[in-house]
Amino acid sequence: MGNSFDKIVMVGAGNVAWHLAPVLEATGCAVTQVYSRRKKKAEELTRRLYQATVQTHLDFSDSPAELFILAVSDDAIAEVVRQIQLPTEAVVVHTSGGQSLEVLADAPTERIGVLYPLQTFSKPRSVNFRNIPICLEANDSEVLHQLTRLAKSISQKVKMISSEERALLHVAAVFANNFTNHMLQIAEQLLQDHQLDFTMLHPLIEETVAKALEIGPAQSQTGPARRHDEKTINHHLKYLRTYDPAYAKVYEALTQHIQAVANNT
Amino acid sequence: MGNSFDKIVMVGAGNVAWHLAPVLEATGCAVTQVYSRRKKKAEELTRRLYQATVQTHLDFSDSPAELFILAVSDDAIAEVVRQIQLPTEAVVVHTSGGQSLEVLADAPTERIGVLYPLQTFSKPRSVNFRNIPICLEANDSEVLHQLTRLAKSISQKVKMISSEERALLHVAAVFANNFTNHMLQIAEQLLQDHQLDFTMLHPLIEETVAKALEIGPAQSQTGPARRHDEKTINHHLKYLRTYDPAYAKVYEALTQHIQAVANNT
Repeated sequence: MGNSFDKIVMVGAGNVAWHLAPVLEATGCAVTQVYSRRKKKAEELTRRLYQATVQTHLDFSDSPAELFILAVSDDAIAEVVRQIQLPTEAVVVHTSGGQSLEVLADAPTERIGVLYPLQTFSKPRSVNFRNIPICLEANDSEVLHQLTRLAKSISQKVKMISSEERALLHVAAVFANNFTNHMLQIAEQLLQDHQLDFTMLHPLIEETVAKALEIGPAQSQTGPARRHDEKTINHHLKYLRTYDPAYAKVYEALTQHIQAVANNT
Repeated sequence: MGNSFDKIVMVGAGNVAWHLAPVLEATGCAVTQVYSRRKKKAEELTRRLYQATVQTHLDFSDSPAELFILAVSDDAIAEVVRQIQLPTEAVVVHTSGGQSLEVLADAPTERIGVLYPLQTFSKPRSVNFRNIPICLEANDSEVLHQLTRLAKSISQKVKMISSEERALLHVAAVFANNFTNHMLQIAEQLLQDHQLDFTMLHPLIEETVAKALEIGPAQSQTGPARRHDEKTINHHLKYLRTYDPAYAKVYEALTQHIQAVANNT
């Protein structure tokens, strides 16, 4: 049956491209060219690939590729769309959670889509794509069909997600990833400032998340805010105000919100 | 050599006692009696134990036990201290992160301490005590020595922690546990309200935490707040203000704090 796209161009060589390009090759596609504003990054990525070459400009009119994946930062998408030249019948997709399909409307092809892998990527950390939800969108059912075939070859969790839903997923991902990480950073900071090792909290953090994913975070919520333990809350706020008033503000905002949400449910 | 305490009484039959009592028995101690204000809970706990009996009052003057563990809610400790009667030479400890050693000062013994397992406990979830930090404090070096022997028999991570340090650990644990869980709850809520499945975020959450624990949350921080992506931040805030202004307030407070912390480091 083969894959839906035999030849693919990767525009961008950041964290998403770094992981996505080799995974696509593992399904039988060829990544033929890699473009990055920073040539060195494109070169690094090609070293992970079988026969990809570095391209230093965005004129792909003569490219043999059928799919062009814009794995660039949100801000750069519009600029790439303005500059890129594509062969006839090319499909172009971006990989962003925060951008609508429409940002590709001015691309020199009618066949546009989104392929958003819902995961946080960093170069040194390997990821198992089989479990990563791939959110797809396209302006045309044939393109959607082709993207679906491609996505299913790398992940078991392929979903059609509209631009509106994807925007919502992106907001939720900020809470689940960036803000969760920030909570851990505050905890680390508090411990470090008292010469205590952050690893002391590792078992607690691991259990917190394992429990939330198993029984759901709404069921898992405990602590002074949830049980309206004003004595402990005031004790903590008093401590944090001395430590750094900004930390106390965060504690207060989250305590109030935990209580408001609990009252609403 | 044997253990430092052969016979132990568990005052309280909540989540901490539920897990701690069987673990203590597994090291060779006998839990002889269990007290709870709610007799039924004490009975349930004794069923997990070898030969413990339920005691329905706090007069332990004739008890053969050497160690009395007050695994009750923070609010209840003072009341138990007022009512409890102990045999001569008894050691009494509480298990709370949020309470100082001093709350035991009025207990009818001079030999007081704290044994705080730094973990979140829930009845249906088994825990591996070997990895749980046990924070110890005592007002007397012999008691501290005895508690250390006991704690080392159940965990590889035994630490002397003062009341002041424990209070700090407790604040940090609120961020690492309660507030982290709340971030996940907000993400879940946003998805559910759009008929999207929270499990879509599971791989992202697992990777977020694995990465934060491996390379440290300060190094892991990404996202619109960290990179001062005002366009995305405003987009998210606009969305959240329509969804529920309280969620927008949390988003704003955390975004500001991420940026303030990044500027300070």
